[in-house]
This record gives sequence, structure tokens and C-alpha cells, in this order.
Amino acid sequence: MRAVEDLPTPAVLVDLDVLEKNVARMAERARTTGVKLRPHAKTHKIPEVGRLQIAFGAAGMSLAKVGEAEVFADANFHDLFLAYPTIGGDRARRLLALADRVKLAVGADSVEGARSLSEVFAAARRKLTVMLKIDCGYHRVGVEPSNAVEVARAIADLPGLELGGIFTHAGQAYAAENAAGVAEVGRHEGETVAAVAAELRAAGLPVGEVSVGSTPTAFSAMRVPGVTECRPGNYVYHDGSQVALGTCGPKDCAMTVAARVVSVPAADRAVVDAGSKTLSSDVLRPRPNGHGLVLGTSSRLDRLSEEHGVVAVAPGDRFRVGQRISILPNHACVVSNLHDRIYGVRAGSVECEWRVAARGRVD
Amino acid sequence: MRAVEDLPTPAVLVDLDVLEKNVARMAERARTTGVKLRPHAKTHKIPEVGRLQIAFGAAGMSLAKVGEAEVFADANFHDLFLAYPTIGGDRARRLLALADRVKLAVGADSVEGARSLSEVFAAARRKLTVMLKIDCGYHRVGVEPSNAVEVARAIADLPGLELGGIFTHAGQAYAAENAAGVAEVGRHEGETVAAVAAELRAAGLPVGEVSVGSTPTAFSAMRVPGVTECRPGNYVYHDGSQVALGTCGPKDCAMTVAARVVSVPAADRAVVDAGSKTLSSDVLRPRPNGHGLVLGTSSRLDRLSEEHGVVAVAPGDRFRVGQRISILPNHACVVSNLHDRIYGVRAGSVECEWRVAARGRVD
Repeated sequence: MRAVEDLPTPAVLVDLDVLEKNVARMAERARTTGVKLRPHAKTHKIPEVGRLQIAFGAAGMSLAKVGEAEVFADANFHDLFLAYPTIGGDRARRLLALADRVKLAVGADSVEGARSLSEVFAAARRKLTVMLKIDCGYHRVGVEPSNAVEVARAIADLPGLELGGIFTHAGQAYAAENAAGVAEVGRHEGETVAAVAAELRAAGLPVGEVSVGSTPTAFSAMRVPGVTECRPGNYVYHDGSQVALGTCGPKDCAMTVAARVVSVPAADRAVVDAGSKTLSSDVLRPRPNGHGLVLGTSSRLDRLSEEHGVVAVAPGDRFRVGQRISILPNHACVVSNLHDRIYGVRAGSVECEWRVAARGRVD
Repeated sequence: MRAVEDLPTPAVLVDLDVLEKNVARMAERARTTGVKLRPHAKTHKIPEVGRLQIAFGAAGMSLAKVGEAEVFADANFHDLFLAYPTIGGDRARRLLALADRVKLAVGADSVEGARSLSEVFAAARRKLTVMLKIDCGYHRVGVEPSNAVEVARAIADLPGLELGGIFTHAGQAYAAENAAGVAEVGRHEGETVAAVAAELRAAGLPVGEVSVGSTPTAFSAMRVPGVTECRPGNYVYHDGSQVALGTCGPKDCAMTVAARVVSVPAADRAVVDAGSKTLSSDVLRPRPNGHGLVLGTSSRLDRLSEEHGVVAVAPGDRFRVGQRISILPNHACVVSNLHDRIYGVRAGSVECEWRVAARGRVD
């Protein structure tokens, strides 16, 4: 078996022991709260990792774009939800083909958007399951809870569509001050959709799933009565931002980036062969602090060019040209999207090489 | 021919008229200053675009990583320079194979790094051309001008290597206040390497090429006597940062991103289907200001998630669900690296589809 130190650099590694522990732990928490787990595949974009999640009890996968769903359908996943406002006749025609192969649901947050799906499905005398997106305070997409009944009814009345439930995403958790703040956001997330679900049902509208989703808020949101489904993504790998948010500890991070020092131009500066092309420019959350921790040291990458990671060498740390280092990235999901393959490692050996099959599927 | 508005979104478009004008203009400026043009392919990563640059008179291509050079060698490019501190026995073995196929030079900024190449080339009784990287004030990689003679001599003395010249990159231009500041950085860039070249020659060291490189500094640096080569990359496409720096005008930007509005949750907020997976998180330079201008409007994307671009709707602008928009990205090079293909367009029609063949070649 190939040793990790024989890999070219930079290389994205996933520690398989940590991955399996992360997958098992989230599955267990979903089971104990009686909530369906539908992990968001955006973090890994790899069918093999998705299969591990299904094997541990996930009900299906969440994705964002139609192109990603096509990849996972090709890989024999049977139950997919596009947790994204999916609009447009061209997309609707691709969804029609997908709906022949898998149990499919898509997000919507406007009547205009839903109408573009309705036209295609109604013409084909088919029904597409639509989930209404609720804004629980992130203020990105989604309808305000006070408008939910009106929009849900209008969507449910469109031919070719059926309302499958509601979903939300509390992305504001990534700006929370600390773990207590994150938990509070999660409770609010769950309570918001539970209340909207009750209102919709009181108005005679069908609400199957009541779905929440994000790794930091998963545990607190799943505990709210009325929540039926959770869609965390990042937990499979975790990353520097999850550590900073208090969602996990450094030992729970499965993804690291192996890199090499290519230059040590000054005592306080070392440059490695992993830049934004490898790590992305995503900042650390909740507070920006460099572009990745050099594991086993006190040093961080403090600026990136596309191919250069500039390490601010902390007092006591030393780097030499040719040295291999291991970086904890700020944001695992975007690292996955930059690479064609990642390596599954265990005890210093490369156990498998996975193609990031759904990488770059933007449409 | 396919109309641009029939493309799925998001899609990366290159206006071929603008591309050709940009390529011709830089080639002309290099010709009039008597400097060799060796464009950095990092901006496009596409052999077809490189061929256009060669057709207009470029002497060869610059690249960063060995994997990129392998792609361009496969595409029949004959003269490649890796403008990057290239180190390590594994890379040296790949370079040895490449050197059979193309005229090759690589960057170095340390004796330790160069030694790892020397060992492999000397054992094979071959010579690799090495260019010494000089730090002209960017403080990323490169030797200080005052150390250049010592490091150049030590590298030139290593078996299996020959010193081909010196090169630099004035990345600090991207932080300049205005166009005059950029030009001043370019003069300093050229003068720094010209002075180092004179010192090296006085010390009996061979200096073939004296190479500068960046799009903003190209015009001023090329004019400095003693400079023999220039390696701009971004000029083929330009982008929002080049406009903000005063390097070009908006009409000189060849790359745009076609996207669609998927949600208009509030009067001051529209959300499009292009997020950081499409545009990257790179900030506008020299001063951060959103994540892309919506062309034909006064609105900008003011925050990105991976799949969502959130437009702060400026007074007077209106967006509706389903509407197609065109985004001027902050940074073209990183957009190229996110996509498997881009579309060449002319007068509203898709004239060609190019595979971004060297995308993701990080090692």
C-alpha cells in the first residue's frame, strides 16, 4: 500500500477512521431523536462517501444542483432532495428525466419559480414533490414565516406539483459567538419550522417533512419536537471553522491537506505548495484568522496566492525546504470542489483513491 | 449555432472579440519594446487560448506546476517555463520526462530546492535550465537582491543544472492605490531585476533571460532597459480587479459569468445561482468591494455561499425570478480553475466550447 509521504503534493487526505466515526456519531444522534438523516453531499461530492452515510442509516441525500443529482443518480442513489430554489424550464426537463430514476424532491421559495417547474411536469402529466424553503433568520433565500401559508397554498395549487413539506437552513450559526450561541440558533431554527408546519397544517396544507440542516445546529435543531429531518453536510469531514465554532475538536477533522515547503525566504516566512487553488480563499468562521492551521505547529497560513500558501512562522516553529506538512483547512466543502480526487488514508497508508465525481457540477 | 441565452446557468463565457483584441494588444506592446512575451497560462488553463497567444507571437508559455506543464506538452507546446520554486525528487523525475519533449526551464529560489532537482538530472547526465527567482518587494518567494549573487553561484555550481537567468513577480501591484502607483511598481520591478542581472554578470554568472511578469505592471516593466521577457497572465481575460486597478476598462473584460436569478426574497435582495463554487471567494483588489458586478446594473453580489450569490439590489435596479444576468468576476484566473469548460461567444452566439484542460493540476 502506498505511504502517505509518497503522495505528490498538494494532496487532499481523508482519515477513514475519523470519517467513519463522524458518520456513525451523526447517524446515532439522528436515531436517538427520531429524526431522518438526509446528509448534504456538498461536503464530499463523492458517491462512495454517500454510500457510507446510507449504510449507517441515512434516508437519502441532499444536494443543491441538478447536475449533482444526476451524478448521484448515476451512482444508484434512490432518494434525492435538491435543497435549493430550483427554477427554469431547462432544469425542469432534466428533473423530469431524473424523476424516472429516483425518488425526487426539490426546493422552491417563490410561486414564479415553482411555476417554471409546474409547466413542464403538468405537460408531462407527472407530479414533482416541492419543499417550501423557510427563512429562519439567515436572510439568504426562503420565504418569511409570515408569508409561508400564502406561498405554500399557491405552490400546492399549481398543476404538476405536490407540496412535500418545508425546509430551512440556519447559516447564521456560522457567525455565532460560541457553542452556546450556535445551539440557540439551532433551537430557533427548529422552532421556526415547527411553528410554520403547524400553521400550514391548520390551513389545510399537507406538510410531510419538516427539515432542518447544518452541521453546527444539527444537534439542537433535531431535538425540537415537530422536526422530522436533518440535512447536515460538513460533519463527515469537519474543518477549522467547525473547531472554531466549537462543533467539534481538532481530532474530529477527517480532511487534511498534505503540502510541501517550497521556499523559506525569511526566518518568519515559509511558503508551501498549497494556495487558494488547493484550499480556496474561504476565511475562517466565525472570525477570520488565516487560511489554515499547520498541524503539529503553532503556525498558520496567513495569506494565499493561487499556488502559494504563505506561513507566518510562529516563534519556536521551524520549516525547511522540502518538508512535508499537514494543513487543517478552513472550509472542507470548498476544498472538495477544487480537486478531482482525494485519498482515503488510515494509519499512514493510502487505502483508497476517490474521484470527486460531483465536483464542479454548478448547473 | 447555440444562443448564449440557451446555455444552462451558471456558465463561464469568454467574448472572443475581446479575447483576440487583448491578446493582440499585449503582443504588440511586447514587440514594440523588444521584449519576449511568455504569457502565464494560469488565467485560462486552456491550450486553445495558449495557441492563440503563440499565434500572435508569444515565445512560449509560463506555468506554475508540473502537472500543468504536462497538459501543455501533451497539447504540443514546445517551450515551457515553470515560474514557481520547483522542488523535490518526485517532481524532478517528471521534469526529466518532460525535458525530452519540450524546451523546459523551472524556477528556484534556494540551493536546497535546486539540489533536489540537481540530483536527479545529474544522475541522468542531463541539464535542467533553472531561473533564479528574485524578490522585488512582494515578499512571497524569491531571494533578496542582495543575496542573488551568492545563491545564483551556488545553484550554477550544482551538477545537472544550468542557470538560465532571473525572474520576478511584482504581486504588490495588486495593492497599489491607482494606475500611477501600479506603473511605479512596474518600474521598480524592472529596475530591480535589471540591476541584479548586471551584478550577476559582473560576478561572471550567465544571465540569459531577465523576466518580469504581471498584467498590471507589464507595460511599465517591459520598458525598463535590460528586461528581456514578460509573463503576464490575466490580460487575456481581464476582470473586475484589473478594472479597479485601472489596468483596463470594463469593455476589455472578456470573461463574464452568465447566471440566473433564483429568488427575490426581499426588495433589496436577489439571489442568483452563481456562488463561490462558480466565482470563488476572492475579494476585489485593490480594495474589497463585493463579489462581482452585475453588468448593466448598479448592483453587486455582496455575499456568496457556495451555490448562492446574494445581490444587494441598488436603488433603481429590479430583478425577477428566472432573469438571466451577466456577472463581471473579481478574479478571472480562479474562475477558470473552478470550471471544466468555458464557452467562447461572439455576437450572442456560442462559437466554441473549450475544456479547461489544465484545471485543478495542483501538483
